[in-house]
Amino acid sequence: MVGGGKDAFIGAIHRIVANMDGLIELSCGALSINPEIAVDSGRSLFLNEDRIYLNFEEMIKKESQLPAEKRIDFITIVTPNFAHFAPAMMALEHGFHVVIEKPIAFTLDEAKKLKAKVEETGLLLCLTHTYSGYPMVKQARAMVKEGVFGKVRKVWVEYPQGWLSKLSEREGNAQAAWRTDPKKSGKSGSMGDIGTHAAHLAEYITGLQITKVCADLNVLVDGRALDDDGNVLLRFNNGAPGVLMASQVAAGEENALKIRIYGEKGGLEWAQQEPNTLLVKWQDAPAQILRAGSNYGDRLSSFATKNCRTPGGHPEGYLEAFANIYRNFALTLSARIDGTEAPAENLDFPSVADGIRGMAFIDNVVASAASALKWTDYVI
Amino acid sequence: MVGGGKDAFIGAIHRIVANMDGLIELSCGALSINPEIAVDSGRSLFLNEDRIYLNFEEMIKKESQLPAEKRIDFITIVTPNFAHFAPAMMALEHGFHVVIEKPIAFTLDEAKKLKAKVEETGLLLCLTHTYSGYPMVKQARAMVKEGVFGKVRKVWVEYPQGWLSKLSEREGNAQAAWRTDPKKSGKSGSMGDIGTHAAHLAEYITGLQITKVCADLNVLVDGRALDDDGNVLLRFNNGAPGVLMASQVAAGEENALKIRIYGEKGGLEWAQQEPNTLLVKWQDAPAQILRAGSNYGDRLSSFATKNCRTPGGHPEGYLEAFANIYRNFALTLSARIDGTEAPAENLDFPSVADGIRGMAFIDNVVASAASALKWTDYVI
Amino acid sequence: MVGGGKDAFIGAIHRIVANMDGLIELSCGALSINPEIAVDSGRSLFLNEDRIYLNFEEMIKKESQLPAEKRIDFITIVTPNFAHFAPAMMALEHGFHVVIEKPIAFTLDEAKKLKAKVEETGLLLCLTHTYSGYPMVKQARAMVKEGVFGKVRKVWVEYPQGWLSKLSEREGNAQAAWRTDPKKSGKSGSMGDIGTHAAHLAEYITGLQITKVCADLNVLVDGRALDDDGNVLLRFNNGAPGVLMASQVAAGEENALKIRIYGEKGGLEWAQQEPNTLLVKWQDAPAQILRAGSNYGDRLSSFATKNCRTPGGHPEGYLEAFANIYRNFALTLSARIDGTEAPAENLDFPSVADGIRGMAFIDNVVASAASALKWTDYVI
Amino acid sequence: MVGGGKDAFIGAIHRIVANMDGLIELSCGALSINPEIAVDSGRSLFLNEDRIYLNFEEMIKKESQLPAEKRIDFITIVTPNFAHFAPAMMALEHGFHVVIEKPIAFTLDEAKKLKAKVEETGLLLCLTHTYSGYPMVKQARAMVKEGVFGKVRKVWVEYPQGWLSKLSEREGNAQAAWRTDPKKSGKSGSMGDIGTHAAHLAEYITGLQITKVCADLNVLVDGRALDDDGNVLLRFNNGAPGVLMASQVAAGEENALKIRIYGEKGGLEWAQQEPNTLLVKWQDAPAQILRAGSNYGDRLSSFATKNCRTPGGHPEGYLEAFANIYRNFALTLSARIDGTEAPAENLDFPSVADGIRGMAFIDNVVASAASALKWTDYVI
Repeated sequence: MVGGGKDAFIGAIHRIVANMDGLIELSCGALSINPEIAVDSGRSLFLNEDRIYLNFEEMIKKESQLPAEKRIDFITIVTPNFAHFAPAMMALEHGFHVVIEKPIAFTLDEAKKLKAKVEETGLLLCLTHTYSGYPMVKQARAMVKEGVFGKVRKVWVEYPQGWLSKLSEREGNAQAAWRTDPKKSGKSGSMGDIGTHAAHLAEYITGLQITKVCADLNVLVDGRALDDDGNVLLRFNNGAPGVLMASQVAAGEENALKIRIYGEKGGLEWAQQEPNTLLVKWQDAPAQILRAGSNYGDRLSSFATKNCRTPGGHPEGYLEAFANIYRNFALTLSARIDGTEAPAENLDFPSVADGIRGMAFIDNVVASAASALKWTDYVI
Repeated sequence: MVGGGKDAFIGAIHRIVANMDGLIELSCGALSINPEIAVDSGRSLFLNEDRIYLNFEEMIKKESQLPAEKRIDFITIVTPNFAHFAPAMMALEHGFHVVIEKPIAFTLDEAKKLKAKVEETGLLLCLTHTYSGYPMVKQARAMVKEGVFGKVRKVWVEYPQGWLSKLSEREGNAQAAWRTDPKKSGKSGSMGDIGTHAAHLAEYITGLQITKVCADLNVLVDGRALDDDGNVLLRFNNGAPGVLMASQVAAGEENALKIRIYGEKGGLEWAQQEPNTLLVKWQDAPAQILRAGSNYGDRLSSFATKNCRTPGGHPEGYLEAFANIYRNFALTLSARIDGTEAPAENLDFPSVADGIRGMAFIDNVVASAASALKWTDYVI
Repeated sequence: MVGGGKDAFIGAIHRIVANMDGLIELSCGALSINPEIAVDSGRSLFLNEDRIYLNFEEMIKKESQLPAEKRIDFITIVTPNFAHFAPAMMALEHGFHVVIEKPIAFTLDEAKKLKAKVEETGLLLCLTHTYSGYPMVKQARAMVKEGVFGKVRKVWVEYPQGWLSKLSEREGNAQAAWRTDPKKSGKSGSMGDIGTHAAHLAEYITGLQITKVCADLNVLVDGRALDDDGNVLLRFNNGAPGVLMASQVAAGEENALKIRIYGEKGGLEWAQQEPNTLLVKWQDAPAQILRAGSNYGDRLSSFATKNCRTPGGHPEGYLEAFANIYRNFALTLSARIDGTEAPAENLDFPSVADGIRGMAFIDNVVASAASALKWTDYVI
Repeated sequence: MVGGGKDAFIGAIHRIVANMDGLIELSCGALSINPEIAVDSGRSLFLNEDRIYLNFEEMIKKESQLPAEKRIDFITIVTPNFAHFAPAMMALEHGFHVVIEKPIAFTLDEAKKLKAKVEETGLLLCLTHTYSGYPMVKQARAMVKEGVFGKVRKVWVEYPQGWLSKLSEREGNAQAAWRTDPKKSGKSGSMGDIGTHAAHLAEYITGLQITKVCADLNVLVDGRALDDDGNVLLRFNNGAPGVLMASQVAAGEENALKIRIYGEKGGLEWAQQEPNTLLVKWQDAPAQILRAGSNYGDRLSSFATKNCRTPGGHPEGYLEAFANIYRNFALTLSARIDGTEAPAENLDFPSVADGIRGMAFIDNVVASAASALKWTDYVI
């Protein structure tokens, strides 16, 4: 693991979820750029002293020199956005598979270089777009793909959070500080941090791609250096319109990612805060409540049922969704090591292609926000 | 009453709600342009034979010649949109107050003429923007006005319906036929029929006015003559951004008008389909569930409590909200007749000014939809 | 109308709902036992001076002497429980149909006398068990009757209110005073006031009858003269167990009547505070959300659709449910007057038989509460 | 681990949750009474060959002979109910701490013997009553304890499941087979399997104890050997009444454990299927929605915040609640090993005392169900 020392938020999450299924073991780490924290953190995680590294370069070099049966299989990168590219590229160059916390990189250009390297090496790159790991998101995708709603006509995705409603970056909140700093976070705050999740969710479920955007990005808290709110009109490659909203200043909201999709015959609604329910609406029949883990004969897709650990009514949450990404990645990796073919459900984790689209989304939205024209073509 | 013959939808609703509080009595009508239906409808409503009229011109003339104590006090117009202006103008010219089903007229120009006539005559004109009649909408407005949320930072209003998901106007659905016909309905389908409700709700609750729009209007059902879906980015006069969505093809939705407003310290959420609840969210405290009719000391505004007929837990609905508009109008009219001053709560019904803004909203959104530029200034 | 003077709660409700459909007109009243209030109330309701009566005896006598076309058709009784019987009996004896606010009388014996008189005279007696007037309650009944759930296995009905959480009867709350006074309210507080509604709802929807009870009645607020809380185990005539709870001291609850019924293949859930939704659950399929007023082809029973005034998504509430009882009664009465046969949907209002069962329920529960034995046979 | 071989449900759950926080490592197992399954299961869990045991006697003996630094610290027992006592007792006798899947034993007598042994040895025994591991359950307990609701007046706890709606035990469902078999499951089906969870939850949150029961147990599916449904009236040691329902034949329900508690000033409501929300109701103020992981200054108890892994809006579920029990047990055990004192929050896991009450609950309810008297005193 690169990054994720004591008190880092997302690193701890990665460790919990990687542990969950007993498939992955944390063996080494360059857990902080602060040597003291790096060592302390490594010890508190019961790492062997000789595998607690002070920086990723050292870690990758030394690990690559270990015998195969002792060497790590892959590297997880959980540093702030600006520090994703270098360890990822070096890991690929030394033959390690890579898991990267979203976004894949700091710029689209970096993302393209990673893509080229992945293609060149044939290694796996897994991007932890957590929300696509939920079973009912996979169910939604399966239903749209199957065509039960007919052509997708409209997409409505929203991601309101309230945690940046004050100028917390000036009040000692470390998370707020780096996420609102363009040098560490990237070109956009609201769109980089959460808008990309919303865009990924919309494309993942519909199977469509955004082709045009019309963006309105705003700084709603005075003194902030990056946008903290954005509203974007979308056009998809089947002609369907959409709306995407991401806000970090929706005071009183927690993490209220929600998507609604309407087709010719019905629609669906999924909300991250009650993730075990998929509401399915029909033009000519009562709405249905599909529930994760439930046993309705063959009514749930195998993509939903294979990404569940508990029976219906035993709620799963964010950590299980996150763990699904790791598990699918690990099973795909195992299959590769064993020379077998992973089933389609296991191959279902976000990859470098999703990373490219995420970076492009940010670039295109920022370009649109700066434009006086309504529509900006989505370019990669 | 003008319009509202047998089988008309909204006319029957107007009669129910005007009846509800025992303040208003239906005395005469020109209920249909079809003479047979006009007579039949009048009889089934127990009207006197000599006050069943065959057209509004006859009705207004004859009624204006009756002695004051027998004459009607006001005229309600429930015809399709294109037939609002003529009876309204004639009624005002003959000294009758007017209630008009929304939208106020067919064009902004007509609306301006009505405004001039109202100002000239001093008569009352009430526009039935039903949704502002709900007690918890009034509560929301009172809280924003009081400043409990601080400055309004963002408005998010959505109005998905699904009833036009098919080309019903070609399948004998009379409601669908006139509402999708530009000659009867106006310049915009989704925005004229329901978008104006959403815009009115947003302006009513926030006390702000829209100053710019960026609209994307779509025909999502092939063969339809008017837009059936629209997404609009907004800018309000305090600088706050907003999003407004109105769709008639959100398959599986009923009448899901919903608004969320975020301020510096918290926000609110109200959904028309569960109208007795106002969800109030706080940045630094748990969300609260405010309920219509509940007795929390002075926690609910008098504007909410005076627009309720039942105690908490005895749900009120669409008809009661609608009846509030009639009741407030009737009590204001009574006060005027009695020479007294109506309390502020009774004066709270939509008027000609709201009608002007509604027509302007349609015009501006349609203009924006035709423009290649992102923002269109909102002009009246 | 007998009772229901100024400031009375339920009388005002009766007037609103009787007005709603334009079928019923209030013509006379003995609105209070206080002559001054009786007169004032009558005037404020625009009654003719000569039909404002000072007591029900005068009203019934004088009205019965009016010519048929001027005379009232029926009498509504909205006095406190102890004063239901006398005016009801006298009205029946003078040939008037009767509407009575629940409970039908003060004792089971009185109820039986009313039943005998109704049978003797052939007049209509309508009891306003409001909650059976909701369209989705009727839908629930229709589905159980049709057998879609198989045999009913279990009934779970709860009615928590919180309004008596304090000793309000000692603090000048008139409603609390009479409802907690055994001389005015009857043998049981929680069961008489709200438990009977719950029992009626359970028997109405299931079509079953309670045959045994095991009751635990409690006074949970010190100093109160009647029970304010009760929990009752039930046995129905098909052998199914049930539980009924009624509490007036469930602090923080409004009027949260809710019923769940489980059969062999599925179940249903309906909650009065969100009455337009009927949740239907299936053993082998996703739950469905049935919505009042929705148009699903023939999926909703005619008993549901004919008791709706608005399309799906335009919520109806308590007043509309109440008005359905009046409307069905009025249409049944009209049909009788016209010599035609009312359709089954119109005949669907609570009658003297429901009144008998309500009084018997109170008696049996009170008897069980006093018994050391677990089960008490339900006797009438 | 004793039990929990391949295809066992609860054993897999125990492994996931014990893994979650990186504090516990599975080192050995007697995973099945079928030797082949025991070996296969051990291998698939990457156990060392020499620590894959064929039965618990062998495991406990051999492990107890290992040097302290290699030896396991505790044993987890996840066998069916009838096979809890023997390995637990043997483990305690050999100096191992114990974690037992609920219920603690097959009979109250066994439970008492375990209690005596725990007291004699001073070892820890942890009982996995999962539902008390949820952060918002702990919040509820803290609020009641703090007295914010005043005296508890009423408890209403329900646990409907639908999975036994058919005679699945005759259709090859192994879970159904042992759980409906009195020889493997115990005296009561509905009360043993899920009623004890409900009783534990009620006593845990209120801090009260049940002193009387009045039970109605039913077999609602013909041919079943144990009750599958039960309704119980309760009396608590402060005089408060309560109702407990547990049903395995509530067709269409998943795992809908829910509790409501009412006090003098307000009440609370928690539902296991949406566990991150605690609804708090007030007699004189709007209800509040408390959310797990949220940051409201000091509004959430440390018992809630220390049992959370994610920030508000990142839902946690059943596995995290379960893991909290393991984590608190592990941290208490660590503190003991280190000779330090565990903080109160870590000591908060169900113990042998809860196990005793659970077994007594079953005995008392079964005795009451067989009695013709209403109330049965709760004896231990």
